[in-house]
Order: sequence, then structure tokens, then C-alpha cells
Amino acid sequence: MSNEALVTRLREHLGKAAVLTDSDVTDAYSRDMMPLASAGKPLAVVLPSDVEGVQAVVKACAEFGVPIVPRGAGSGLSGAANAIDGCVMLVLTKLDQVVEIDAANRLAVVQPGVVNLDFRNAVEKHGLFYPPDPSSYDWCTIGGNLSTNAGGLCCVKYGVTTDSVLGLEVVLADGSVLKTGRRTVKGVAGYDLARLFVGSEGTLGVITQATVALKPLPQLPSTFVAGFSSTEAAGEAVARVVREGLVPSLLEIMDATSIKAAETYLKTDVGAGTDCKALLLAQSDSGGEVARRELAALEQICVDCGADLAYATDDLEEGKMLLQVRRVVLTALELYGVWLTDDVCVPRTRIAELIAGCERISEEVGLRIAVVGHAGDGNMHPTIVYAPDSEDEFARAQKAFDAILDVSLSLGGTVTGEHGIGRIKREWLAKEIGEVGLKVHRQIKQALDPGNLFNPGSMFSL
Amino acid sequence: MSNEALVTRLREHLGKAAVLTDSDVTDAYSRDMMPLASAGKPLAVVLPSDVEGVQAVVKACAEFGVPIVPRGAGSGLSGAANAIDGCVMLVLTKLDQVVEIDAANRLAVVQPGVVNLDFRNAVEKHGLFYPPDPSSYDWCTIGGNLSTNAGGLCCVKYGVTTDSVLGLEVVLADGSVLKTGRRTVKGVAGYDLARLFVGSEGTLGVITQATVALKPLPQLPSTFVAGFSSTEAAGEAVARVVREGLVPSLLEIMDATSIKAAETYLKTDVGAGTDCKALLLAQSDSGGEVARRELAALEQICVDCGADLAYATDDLEEGKMLLQVRRVVLTALELYGVWLTDDVCVPRTRIAELIAGCERISEEVGLRIAVVGHAGDGNMHPTIVYAPDSEDEFARAQKAFDAILDVSLSLGGTVTGEHGIGRIKREWLAKEIGEVGLKVHRQIKQALDPGNLFNPGSMFSL
Repeated sequence: MSNEALVTRLREHLGKAAVLTDSDVTDAYSRDMMPLASAGKPLAVVLPSDVEGVQAVVKACAEFGVPIVPRGAGSGLSGAANAIDGCVMLVLTKLDQVVEIDAANRLAVVQPGVVNLDFRNAVEKHGLFYPPDPSSYDWCTIGGNLSTNAGGLCCVKYGVTTDSVLGLEVVLADGSVLKTGRRTVKGVAGYDLARLFVGSEGTLGVITQATVALKPLPQLPSTFVAGFSSTEAAGEAVARVVREGLVPSLLEIMDATSIKAAETYLKTDVGAGTDCKALLLAQSDSGGEVARRELAALEQICVDCGADLAYATDDLEEGKMLLQVRRVVLTALELYGVWLTDDVCVPRTRIAELIAGCERISEEVGLRIAVVGHAGDGNMHPTIVYAPDSEDEFARAQKAFDAILDVSLSLGGTVTGEHGIGRIKREWLAKEIGEVGLKVHRQIKQALDPGNLFNPGSMFSL
Repeated sequence: MSNEALVTRLREHLGKAAVLTDSDVTDAYSRDMMPLASAGKPLAVVLPSDVEGVQAVVKACAEFGVPIVPRGAGSGLSGAANAIDGCVMLVLTKLDQVVEIDAANRLAVVQPGVVNLDFRNAVEKHGLFYPPDPSSYDWCTIGGNLSTNAGGLCCVKYGVTTDSVLGLEVVLADGSVLKTGRRTVKGVAGYDLARLFVGSEGTLGVITQATVALKPLPQLPSTFVAGFSSTEAAGEAVARVVREGLVPSLLEIMDATSIKAAETYLKTDVGAGTDCKALLLAQSDSGGEVARRELAALEQICVDCGADLAYATDDLEEGKMLLQVRRVVLTALELYGVWLTDDVCVPRTRIAELIAGCERISEEVGLRIAVVGHAGDGNMHPTIVYAPDSEDEFARAQKAFDAILDVSLSLGGTVTGEHGIGRIKREWLAKEIGEVGLKVHRQIKQALDPGNLFNPGSMFSL
């Protein structure tokens, strides 16, 4: 059966406009935001607009033995949504409805193509809050968030995507539709299949709908910043925050390199005259007196750990300005070249050691590495800067990327905190989970996708 | 290969004292606390004391083709730990070590045989809190909690067992040891296998160790009670608590039948002179002014919904006395006969409808049904009382048990909120998850346990 026949079949099911084959167009769908990963040439890009359309695509591809790479907005950072040669790119962005908001039961039903921010705004109108907030929240989609089990800044208090998922609708390898999970808060009827599909990076099925739990809308945030003359001191402060049981709604760290980049970009002195080598930024969304008390406790810890600068505010605009320093880091790093951002997670007591490891690697490879991260979770994003036109620097950046993963594992951490394995960390997954872990992954993959057509070669190979 | 040869092999590996075959002794291990489930005669009961012992049992049973039923303390309420004829009962109570408490990273490593309460006490010494608190917490084990994904009273604020799990060690069907998950708060390296094994009721592998996240120790609880002249009013109050975003650390409901039983048993007037048909009991563990504010908000909602009685206290002893009314219900019901407790979970707006359904069923079958439950989660335990010596009443109790599940499904609920499917709700699992859901369950079971030796026939049949 020829490729043409498959395209014809897909057009019969989805209509002409939803099946793209012009390579100028399909190329635009062929890779995510991770420069390390290679991308193949898709046979076609399809944009179904309902679950029946997804079923038709899956069934047709199964019949023709053609692999399927599911894709949301393409904001991923692991190459998990990159095309492989001859695949059908199954783009879910037209399944873009917020199907239901049940405020009384604090849940919503949402399709995968809805942009995270649009979903947040939709539930906020009902006084509700959808916590997962990856940095790309203004353009990434819920489907991608589910497939990568995305995190974000507020995980420290509210958990990651999987912690919000109650149920899923998934198109399986044979084209049948699985409805798993529930609309109730609790439930133990059968295996927790929903959480098996969440984070499976499109290798087990295509998520076409999710039922998610929502939180009460928190209070407006109060913001706190502390500057330290060493990363060790900042790391100790984070460890003490954890040990003393404080749970801020945001707790970010920046190392000296990222501070300098942000200062240069914003033309400001972040340390306000102090010798600032590490910055902690925190928020409390508990409101009023409680927020003040939480931030005062944070301040006490930071001062005890030797902070040269400690400042809290409940002024919203001022808080935004302070956070801006963290938010501009990646943009600011473009002053020096292009960047490659890594993603590791270490026990929260080992953050300073991870930053020290990155400094060592930076010297070894001769490239700037800025470390920013979600300190409250130990989830760090060391970001390597290299010249866009230098193959040598790119090679050294790749070396640094791997060396950082090695440091994370040696500190008892993981090779990915929230970006996923995709096509760039496959051998690292094997290192982290070992032969037995890999065996179980393969058993489950073979059980649910016997033809190996769902995103084959992402995460691990059969 | 004979049964004797298997017993000899098991004794070689575990020592004589850890392999029991005297039927007087093995009978004591052959069933859990659910009277509806039948129990077979085990070939042997084995009590290994380390992971190597568990591996030896699994390998020997695989070689001899003998099924294994893993078991903790036997406090289960679904028959999931009941013997099947000729099986080896794999009792995990000798793996009873708290391996590590890492207070700085707020995590612990624990073996399955540790009693829930002992574990709570161990981490409390470090100022830490392990939330899952099933009613049997003073004798159930962590392994059973993991296998059933146990809940409890504090789920409304802190989630169920799976929400605390970071990683697991599991002995697989071929005797190999899987280490899955991590010690970090976040991590997306590979499938979420830990949460697949949690709640799988011993059908996929034998959990020999868990790494769990701990919470800061909460403040001492303040307690609130409200009495209503109708369940509708109490149900409306629960719905409003959810809608207004209040998150108490406990929110329990009692219907008229359970109130009357408790009153008779405790020789007290729960309603303090009012015509009390439904009771809400709540706690806040936020401490001080915050707790007072949370309970005041609760009180306002209850008064708005027509409560005849509303009372809050931050006196610990008084709070315990108030909660005692809830805690004695099952014991109090023994005044009337023996009981059979059901376990359903409905959307939190449908609690009053569920109670009304139970009242209807009670009239139909002519048996007393008392409804108590975790109102904050919608997780209800309608408890049917019948005469111990009446086969007819037992048959009607079974009929009521099923009718309650039917009502729960019709209200958009699930057939089990926290007790599990086990051997008593298999056909109900099929009804709830449907053919496709069952197909995926079987695919996963066959992939991980191709010989179908782990607790075969529990949850579903192949």
C-alpha cells in the first residue's frame, strides 16, 4: 500500500484542508524547541478536529504500518514531538475546546489543543485555578503538558500536571477509545491508567480529552527576594526552607551567571550594591497576614544563612518587577549567543553542589553556563550558551549537556525533572532506570502498541 | 513437581519457621475483613524477611506454577488478600523496617510490613507527617496501603497514598527487582510505573520498599460540628464548602441512622435537643488565627444552609470527644447486628442524593443502612446491618451492597473510593471501566505477569 493511498484515505476522513503534504508547510511541524534533536521528514501533517478524526488517523496508519508522532504546540524541549522520516504528524491543536467547567465539583473537562493560558483564564472566570504553569504557558497546549507531565513555577506548592489529572480519554493503537479515571476526587477502581498515559510522551496512545481537578483561586501573591554572596549560602537557605516546612507558592534560584545576564539585559543592579552571587525569589499566595508571616519566616532563614539582601513586598507590580529578573534570563542569555537548556532535578539539599558542578563543567568546556531553577523542587535548568555559527562550540555545548546529567545522577537526582526524555536523553533514561526498568517499559509499550507506531524511538527503543 | 517439593524449596530459602503449612495456622492468614468474599485453602503461608526472600518465593512459585497472594495485616475490605486454593500466601509483615528518614529532603524509605501508625510515629519524631490515615491505621501496614492506594480521613486536604509515593522497589514475576521512581520531588524519566503498581492490589508485582514524600507536621487540630434537620441541607453545605474553596483537614458526614447508633452507644444526645438528621464534623490543622478563620467560614456556610447546631472548639480533648461520635459508628452498629461496609465515591455535589438512595434501598431490603463518609471527597461508606445468623438477611445485605454501587454509578461516581475491587467488585469494575478499559487492564497484566500467578482473579479475570 502506497503513501499516496494513505494520504487519500486520510483526506477522505478528515477533509483536504486537514491533511498537509507540502514540505514547506510540513517542515514547520517537524520539530520542537530542542536544538539537539534531529528531525525527519513527515509524510503528512494531519489536523483532526475531533476524537473520531483521531481514531480515523490511528486506524489508517495502523493499516498502512505508518508511524504516528502526536504533537501539540511544539514547545517541547526534548525532541519528543519531532518528526521521523515518513511519519504522520498528528497535530492536536484543533481539538481546542474547554468542554466543561464544573465549578461546584472543582473540575473541568478539556481537549488537548487548548493553550495552557487560555485554559487558566477560562477556569479563573469561575474563581478556580489550574496550577501547572510551564514557562511556555502562553503558547503550550494541555495535550503537550499531559504527554510530558509538565511542571512549572508553582509545582513547589501545587504539584505537576499528573497531580491535577482525574481522568483521560485516549485513542489506543487499535483505534478504540479508552475512557479511564473518573470525575470524583477519590477512586481506586482498577489500575491508575490515567497516570500511566500522563508523561508517556505519546508512545502509548493519543490523549483526546482530560478531566482535571481545579484548586480554589489563590490570593494575589506577595513576593520576596534574597541575595547571597555564595551559592552555598543560598543552597543552605533552600534546604532550611524545606526542613522547616515552609511551602511558598514559588521558590526560584539564580546563579551568578544568570544574575549577570539579567543585570546586563535589564540595565539594573540586582544585588543593589552587594556582591550578589546567588538570588532566591519566592512568593506566597496565602494572602494577608499569613503571606506576611510566611515571607517573614523565609526572610529569617535567608538572613540566618548570611543573605546580604532580603526584601519582601505585597505590592503586585513591584513583585512582577522582581520576578522579571528571573523571567528574562533566557532572553538575556541571547546577548552572548544561542542557548541550550538542560533539565535535571536533585534532592533539595544538593542544589549548591549541582551549581558548583555546572561551574566546573563551564570551565572545562569553556562555555558560559547559567543556572536557574525551581529551587523549591530541586529542579534546575542549567543553560549552556554557545555561538550559533560554531560547530566546535555546539559540540562542546552537547558535551556540557551530558556532563550536567552525569552530575545530577551522581547527586541522587534524575536526568529530567519536567522536560522529558524524548529523543535526546534515551541513553540517559537507560542509565537512570537500569535494565529491569527498561524491560518493564518495553513490556508495557509492546502490550499497548504492538505495532510500535506511536512515536517510536522516543524515550527508548524496542 | 509436587507441592511438597515447593514447600521444601521454600524452606531451604526462608528457613523452616518462615514457611507455615499447618492449616490451623494458615487459615488465620486466608482472609481479610470483608465477609462477602470467599477464601480458599492456601498451600503454604510464607513470611520472608527481606527482598531476597521475596525473590526466592516468586521464583520458586513461578517454577512450580503456583499462584501467589501477597498480604499485609489483612485489614482489607475487598477480599483482595484472600487465599485461593493451593496458593502461597506471601505475608510481608516481616519486612518491617523504616529504612531511612531523610528529614532534610522530607522523605522516608519504608518496608511494606511497617504498621501505618508506627510509621507515622517514626516520622513525627522528625517533625514530619505521613498523611494517609485509613481507619485501620493502628494495625494496617504500609504495603497494604500501597497495594490498595488507601485513603483515610485526611485525604480531603492531603490526598491518598499514591500522592505521597516517590518511588518503589518491586519484585516482578520473573523474580527480578524493579526500582522505579526517584528520591526527588519532580521527575519525568520514563513511565510513571510507581503509580501503576500503587493500587494494583498485588496483581502486578510484590512491593518490597517505598520511598515516600512527607509533609511538615501540621498544627494541632481545631474541631467543628454542625447538625442539620435534613441530609439535603448537610449535602448543600458540603457542596458550598467545595465551591467556596475551603480545604479543611477533615470533613466527615453522618446520616440519621449512624447518629442514632452513636447516640445509643455513647448514651448521649448528639443533636443537643435539636432534631438532628445529619451531622458534619470538620477539623482545621492550620493552627491559631487561620484555623479559627477557616472554621468560622465553615460555620457561616452551615448556618446559611440551615444548621440547627454549629459549634467550634480548639480544645484538643473536646475535639476528640466530638470526633468520637464519628469513630464509634461501626462499633455502635454492632448493637443491631453485624455489618457490611460499602465504599463508593460520588461527585461532592451528589452526597445527599446518595444518602437518599441508601434510605430507599434500606426500605427495599428491610435492613438498617447507616451512611458515614468522607464528605469532603464524596467518599461514602454506607454500612448495612444484618443478623449474623440469618442467611436471608445476609442475602438481602448483599443485594443492598450491589444496589448502592448502582446508585453511585448512576450519580457519576465510582464503585470504590478507597477499599478496592478485590474479589467482591469484579463485575462492577467491568461495568465502570467498560470493555476497552478491561482490555487495557488485561494487556498490562499479561505483559507484566504472563503466568498469571500474582493474585489471579483479584480485580478482574483474564
